[in-house]
Order: sequence, then structure tokens, then C-alpha cells
Amino acid sequence: MEDWSARQYLKFEDERTRPPRDLLAQVPLERPRRVVDLGCGPGNSTELLVARYPQSEVIGLDSSPAMLRKARERLPKHSFIEADIATWSPAPGTDLLFSNAVMQWLPDHTTVLRRLLAALAPGGVLAVQMPDNTREPGLVFQGEVGRSGPWADHPEIKAAPRPDLPSVEAYYDLLKPVASHIDIWHSIYNHVMASPAAIVEWFKGSSLQPFLSPLDTVAREKFLAAYGKKIAGAYKPRSDGKVLLKFPRLFIVAVR
Amino acid sequence: MEDWSARQYLKFEDERTRPPRDLLAQVPLERPRRVVDLGCGPGNSTELLVARYPQSEVIGLDSSPAMLRKARERLPKHSFIEADIATWSPAPGTDLLFSNAVMQWLPDHTTVLRRLLAALAPGGVLAVQMPDNTREPGLVFQGEVGRSGPWADHPEIKAAPRPDLPSVEAYYDLLKPVASHIDIWHSIYNHVMASPAAIVEWFKGSSLQPFLSPLDTVAREKFLAAYGKKIAGAYKPRSDGKVLLKFPRLFIVAVR
Repeated sequence: MEDWSARQYLKFEDERTRPPRDLLAQVPLERPRRVVDLGCGPGNSTELLVARYPQSEVIGLDSSPAMLRKARERLPKHSFIEADIATWSPAPGTDLLFSNAVMQWLPDHTTVLRRLLAALAPGGVLAVQMPDNTREPGLVFQGEVGRSGPWADHPEIKAAPRPDLPSVEAYYDLLKPVASHIDIWHSIYNHVMASPAAIVEWFKGSSLQPFLSPLDTVAREKFLAAYGKKIAGAYKPRSDGKVLLKFPRLFIVAVR
Repeated sequence: MEDWSARQYLKFEDERTRPPRDLLAQVPLERPRRVVDLGCGPGNSTELLVARYPQSEVIGLDSSPAMLRKARERLPKHSFIEADIATWSPAPGTDLLFSNAVMQWLPDHTTVLRRLLAALAPGGVLAVQMPDNTREPGLVFQGEVGRSGPWADHPEIKAAPRPDLPSVEAYYDLLKPVASHIDIWHSIYNHVMASPAAIVEWFKGSSLQPFLSPLDTVAREKFLAAYGKKIAGAYKPRSDGKVLLKFPRLFIVAVR
């Protein structure tokens, strides 16, 4: 997959910053020593962490050079490191691992979550948010279009749909043995979008990327046209002409 | 229905105060002139409003004298008024109407919500939270036990089950014509409870009340035994012996 377009991702920055704000509001730490933003992307979540913890060392971590470039522009005084969450481990003195909308992309992310929580000292916090929208029309249609066009046999496109997240109970049973306290919840947002086309734009910055990256320009346009048609059929205008994008997200705050 | 037991309601105060905290966090007002806590109950939500808006006039409103007594003990310096939300209207200068876990009890609450929002001056905010858990086992079983015991024909018990809330789309279409901005979301909490019996205790402080109030002591015990058996069958212990009480709630923040 090619580097994600940071600009596309940031098109809906207000809406995309609500989940990390909601997550951060539940972190029970007053003054952590070191905070690491796992999968910091273009640095919008890192900026929230810096604002809440001005006395702490806040570090952003991502695997994408394009995202890190944007993040460094946004927060030139802070450290950003290029690393793979799957193999990275926190140094002693790390009190908060914050991960917004990234863990869902890792193969076997449950094992990674447990390993990271276990690596913290007692009282350390792992705070995670992941989209849990694989059963929503916006994502179901991505898989449908992926399976039905001339690109159907492309191995990257076959592998593109994200698996459903495990249940709340599964996360609880997984993390509780290494947690002194754990809180798991969903929030289901309803983003007010200007049109069905705006929903397509939204997903171009996130879950559509693995479908579009392997395609050439012509095939991309065909894919987006087929996807846009399905979106327009499912997301109907409200009384004021806007459309509501229902977006379920899973939150975990676990204390070591 | 007899006066609610404030003490029973407050047994799970930490968990019950999370939703109004989450609601308040999304209210886009820095310094409202007058704030009214509609259905203030024992004053836990009022206390949050006082803490966030120390410069504002904060007033609690409820129809239950027992709840108001508790609220006045908790916040002796503040005004509390006994009134019926269905007919009450805000005085000029009221910038925030806050309503936590009460509107779902009103007949035709959608009409009330729209009337209250329309009564605010431009920029005024209506912030509402309601449990949206009528399809959860904990509430479904209340209706099942209500329909299957010797109390099945009691008119108050027949009327006790709360109807399902309207859809997000219905609230949007209802309020948008009198709103400059509107945000509607669900949060689905998972309260970690010590046992299935603790779930019964939880609901004794809220949605079980309309079922239990019409019954004498013996019938109440029978009702609770039948209900508790169903709860124990549906809410199974996790790996650490605790049970998770899944609790969906609807939030609305509308700006006039």
C-alpha cells in the first residue's frame, strides 16, 4: 500500500479529532512522565496529548514517513519516531500509551495490545480507539465493489477488507489478567455530511485506501463510481438535505 | 408511581455520573447566564453543572419531592424547583437546558424537546441524555416478567415498559428546523458489575421502579426472584468472575 495521503485524512479533521478527545477525557492520569502516541498519523492526536499534558514528554510514533513529515511540521518541538507498533516496546518511564484509529490495521492486534499493556509499570495506562464499522454500509460496500469488478482477483484487494473487531467481552477477557482496571465502551457518532459524495471523500482518507492503492487511475475512478452509487442508495438525505454518516467506534482504557 | 428511592438510585453513582459528564463535555458554552438541570434527581448532574459553570446561575428542576430533598442537601446554596417538564418553559436569559436520564419517562417527549429548544434564544443549547436500552436483556426481561406473573393484568404494570426511543434520524429531522447545529450520538457503556444480583440492584433504582411500585412486599420479592433468574441466565461471568452490563445511551446536543 502506498503512503496514505495526510491531506485526504485531514479533510475531516474536526470530526476525526472527536474520538481521540473522547478517549483522552477518560484517561485517569494527571501528569504522566512519558506519553507515546502510537500511530500518530499527521499529529492531530499528538497535539491533543501535548495540550493536555504540557509537562510531560510526548512522543509520536508512526510507520508512515508522509504522516511523520506532517506531524513534525505541526509540532516542530516534539520527537517523532518511525517504528512498527507490532514490534516496538515502551521504555521504562512510559506512563501512557495512546493509540487512536490505528490498531485495527495490525495483524493480530489483540496480542499486541496485551503485550503493550503488560510492558507498562503498575498504574500505566493503555488507551485505544478503533473504528468498529465493518458492518456499516460504508464499509460493506467497499468489500462488495472489491469482489465484483475487474480487480476482484488482485491479491491486495482481496486482502483489503478489515476483519470485524472482536467483542467487548473478548477484549475484557484478554486484557483483564494484566489490568488493575479496565473500561471498554462504544460511541456511535453520526457525522453530518453535505452529501453522499462527501461520505466517499471521507473513506478515501481511510478504509478505501487499501482498495484504491493497488489500482491505476482509470480503475480507481471506476471503483469510486461503483462505490459512490451504492453509497448514494444507502445514505438518504435528511429533511435539510444533509446525510448522516453513522460511525461506531470502540474505546478501551486499561490500567496496568 | 411512588417517589423514587434516591438512595437506591445513588448506589451506582460513579457509573451513573459518567453519562452526564460525557454530555456536558460536548456542550459548546463557556459561560451561560442561566443553566437549568431538567429532572435533576438527587443533584448529581446539578453538581457537575455547578462545577463546570461556577459563574452561572444553576437551577435544578424535578417533579419528585424526595429527589429534590436530596438535591437541596447536596447543594444547599442553589435553587431547586418542583415542576413538570412537560409544561414548564425557560425564562429569558436561560442559555442551557440540561437533561440527564429523564426525558425518556415523558409521554411524547419528542414534542417537549422541540418546544424547549424552540423556546431558547439563538445560541442557547439543549443537551439531553436518555437510556436507549429497551432492547437489552435487562429491560426485555422486565417486560417478560411483567406479562407472565399474577400481576400481569395490573394496569400500572401493563403500562410500565418504556417504549423504544425513536431513531437518530427521527430526532435529527424533528430538531433540525429549530437548531443551528445538532450533534446526536450513542455511547454503549459496559459497566463492570460484581454479579448478576448487582444488575438487579442497578435496575431497582431506575427502570424496575414502575414494575415494583404497584406491588406489595411479597409480590415484589416474587417479581425480583423471577427477574433475577433471567438476568443470571443472560449475563454470564467473565474470566475474573465479574459481569458486564451493556448499557446504550442516546445523546443530543442541539444549538438554537
